[in-house]
Amino acid sequence: MGKKQRTAIEPTREQNYPEWYQQVIRAADLAENSPVRGCMVIKPWGYSLWENMQQGLDKMFKDTGHKNAYFPLFIPMRFMQKEAQHVEGFAKECAVVTHHRLEADDDGMLQPAGKLDEPLVVRPTSETIIGEMFAKWIHSYRDLPLLINQWANVVRWEMRTRLFLRTTEFLWQEGHTAHATAEEAQAETIQMLNIYAQFAEEQMAMPVIKGEKSESERFPGALRTYSIEAMMQDRKALQAGTSHFLGQNFSKAADIKFLDDEGQLRHAWTTSWGVSTRLIGALIMTHSDDDGMIIPPRLAPAHVVILPILHDDEHHSAILDYCHQLRRELQDVNYAGRNLTIELDDRDIRGGEKTWSWIKKGVPIRLEVGRREYEEGNVFMGRRDKGHRDRKTLSKGEFVATAADILADIQQTIFNKARKFRDENIVKIDSREDFYDYFTPKNKDKAEIHGGFALCHWDGSVETEEKIKDELSVTIRNIPETSEEEDGKCVMTGKPSKRRVIFAKAY
Amino acid sequence: MGKKQRTAIEPTREQNYPEWYQQVIRAADLAENSPVRGCMVIKPWGYSLWENMQQGLDKMFKDTGHKNAYFPLFIPMRFMQKEAQHVEGFAKECAVVTHHRLEADDDGMLQPAGKLDEPLVVRPTSETIIGEMFAKWIHSYRDLPLLINQWANVVRWEMRTRLFLRTTEFLWQEGHTAHATAEEAQAETIQMLNIYAQFAEEQMAMPVIKGEKSESERFPGALRTYSIEAMMQDRKALQAGTSHFLGQNFSKAADIKFLDDEGQLRHAWTTSWGVSTRLIGALIMTHSDDDGMIIPPRLAPAHVVILPILHDDEHHSAILDYCHQLRRELQDVNYAGRNLTIELDDRDIRGGEKTWSWIKKGVPIRLEVGRREYEEGNVFMGRRDKGHRDRKTLSKGEFVATAADILADIQQTIFNKARKFRDENIVKIDSREDFYDYFTPKNKDKAEIHGGFALCHWDGSVETEEKIKDELSVTIRNIPETSEEEDGKCVMTGKPSKRRVIFAKAY
Repeated sequence: MGKKQRTAIEPTREQNYPEWYQQVIRAADLAENSPVRGCMVIKPWGYSLWENMQQGLDKMFKDTGHKNAYFPLFIPMRFMQKEAQHVEGFAKECAVVTHHRLEADDDGMLQPAGKLDEPLVVRPTSETIIGEMFAKWIHSYRDLPLLINQWANVVRWEMRTRLFLRTTEFLWQEGHTAHATAEEAQAETIQMLNIYAQFAEEQMAMPVIKGEKSESERFPGALRTYSIEAMMQDRKALQAGTSHFLGQNFSKAADIKFLDDEGQLRHAWTTSWGVSTRLIGALIMTHSDDDGMIIPPRLAPAHVVILPILHDDEHHSAILDYCHQLRRELQDVNYAGRNLTIELDDRDIRGGEKTWSWIKKGVPIRLEVGRREYEEGNVFMGRRDKGHRDRKTLSKGEFVATAADILADIQQTIFNKARKFRDENIVKIDSREDFYDYFTPKNKDKAEIHGGFALCHWDGSVETEEKIKDELSVTIRNIPETSEEEDGKCVMTGKPSKRRVIFAKAY
Repeated sequence: MGKKQRTAIEPTREQNYPEWYQQVIRAADLAENSPVRGCMVIKPWGYSLWENMQQGLDKMFKDTGHKNAYFPLFIPMRFMQKEAQHVEGFAKECAVVTHHRLEADDDGMLQPAGKLDEPLVVRPTSETIIGEMFAKWIHSYRDLPLLINQWANVVRWEMRTRLFLRTTEFLWQEGHTAHATAEEAQAETIQMLNIYAQFAEEQMAMPVIKGEKSESERFPGALRTYSIEAMMQDRKALQAGTSHFLGQNFSKAADIKFLDDEGQLRHAWTTSWGVSTRLIGALIMTHSDDDGMIIPPRLAPAHVVILPILHDDEHHSAILDYCHQLRRELQDVNYAGRNLTIELDDRDIRGGEKTWSWIKKGVPIRLEVGRREYEEGNVFMGRRDKGHRDRKTLSKGEFVATAADILADIQQTIFNKARKFRDENIVKIDSREDFYDYFTPKNKDKAEIHGGFALCHWDGSVETEEKIKDELSVTIRNIPETSEEEDGKCVMTGKPSKRRVIFAKAY
């Protein structure tokens, strides 16, 4: 290929993956750190990704009978006490409100004042407060199932944060449902897992593996936790969504009871499930390349950017008119159930800088329009999933007529590429030696790049999991739904095992 | 007419307005108080009103070039210090986070631990943190205008709370924009005021009066504050939205500077504007009657409810099939840019109870379908804006064909009714005696019901405003945009005045 091209993002993935991730976010103008420790500012381009994700998921939730509601930001400390007694792995790192006023002291400096009788915790999750309300709302089997979702901000005090992946405050949705029977609650748990997987694959173009978590990775208090796991380009796993079957544990703690159709008082069966702004981190690390973000068309804040080339004064307004007309035609095109969103960038900056800003932002299609395109009734199209020099000329009419197909093709292409990458980096490993070798980085300078996903037999014990975690920082991601029963031996202990699980390093 | 009907809501508006308000909320299942002092739980029916309002406003914001973003929940206390020095009317009642962990003491009781070096305030508004970011983002005139909006929760510690109208936590949007010139910022301020008024009138069917606030009612630090004011059915005013021209005050405090096109460093001109879940309170008090909520079709979570009457076993499934078919046909009907949302209530409860539950919830159209309607291919329609006995039979086809028109008619009818009520309760008052008389309740038992809006001349002094506020609890709502210049005398002091202002009691 001749001499090495300079890339828009430095360092490259190969050179320094974690730093590459930060630089993609900066180059695409998605988010930045705020003056508030561990809290991020989500900038318009990043926030519109979240809006599109919300819209996609919200429709799927509503189509399956869920309703949105809103619960308080604050949780009385006594609720957490209940929780603390109930579950061992209780999260204690949370923001605590102890005062309700600021008052100036003698030097005119503000100080907390108005001490609260009972401290309030900023919700790390709303399980307890929603449980309290469910107990009030549910009386008889006629009130079930109760299918509630909330879109909200939550706070978990984090010492080491990374934009989107781990922040003190983040945005999420939390579904909470109550059912009359264990079977119904279990079916709901799986339904929501499937919705997450469908959303990830169809809208985010991100292949995921559905499966159940091992006991030690379960949500505290849950009977069963399921997850979808995706592979990032450094071959680490990212847990992209979880769905919990909570049995009657939470309904007993919150006293959620109902009269069944025979007049018997019973505890309800509950579930909870959630995804967060972490998905944006997953999106970035699934598709982006060394030139920046690549956004799947289904979630793109803009599907097409039109870039008029205006250095020719004589034809300036004619070219602009042509671009505006093109925009109007494209705005009527329907793709995946909504009309296209088109950017027309007529900023007075250098053409190269302008084009690169949209490459870095990850817009699926760029259309350059200069004097030649205008005169010949064409557009000069670049696709973000192809190299930035791989462009071609189409007639305007042909492009408008096929824009939706091209977008669908981009969506499919980046999904296929991500799936191929993932599948190439899943291996079955049956010996302890190979297992250690697989998860030991070959180059110490690139500590983040290691093997990938290992499908291995495991003896089912927490001790084995802990040993692997301690020695290799590798965990069981989940027991894949597709993992077939077979006779095998645990990769660590040689004890008998019936199914393979996925081992990986994880975010 | 004859004997007095019992109403679904007790007490009636006439009997006890504040209690009627609470009972409408309860009967329509919109929201309730939570175990967290001053914080409400917004239940699905109430939350879907907020979702529809968000959707309507968000489109208007985006159509005028604004982008959504998200800023941190927490504000470092030193930012508030800056604010405290800057503006006198600074709000100090806010939730203060002082610790970041819960730890069990020797008795196993959780206590706040991990004291923060600097307390954090839960945002009462995001002016300061957004100002900080704007200062980072804005460098040159090319970065302007910067047009940002945020949908978020905010917290203001309130001692006396009322669902939707005044709660410690509430949901809102806050727009924040920066401009190169005063004229542009002023134009933005007015544009957003107009958007609020248009939204209130066209979507909420709530007539409003646009105008500028008097100096003493201005947002602290603003050069000019504008509001939209609506009249509730107790003839009090409710401020339904505000838009502030902040001049350079905030840009100086936050150091938001830009290089103009001549290379000169200048402070930007900023605006801010917001509406909140208070609008739901306004919606309730504008339209509801003594039978419960009346929801304008443009914001209705469900436009039509189908009520099968199923006590006839023989035709049970045929009637249900007929209802499902009706629903499918109606779901394809477009009204005001979106497809109709239809509820089909086949719960096994008494017909009267079922019908009344939807009357109380305020669904615009009810369709009862029993054996007769099914056999004759009809529906038996009730409109929520008419008396609950005022129903009529239409053929199914005719109803489907005209459903959008009927909804448009309901929207217009309730707007007209609210406007008529408001206009009948605005009077010009020119004498001090009449003014006192107007604002003195005639019946001490019904302290909340008084005159209405008084259009009066005012001498422009803060002293006069304060005297009126002290003696009558009446304030200047705004100086209506439509108030024409005329020579007059202040209703209190007799001093000269050029324009009438609106005086009213207010929420």
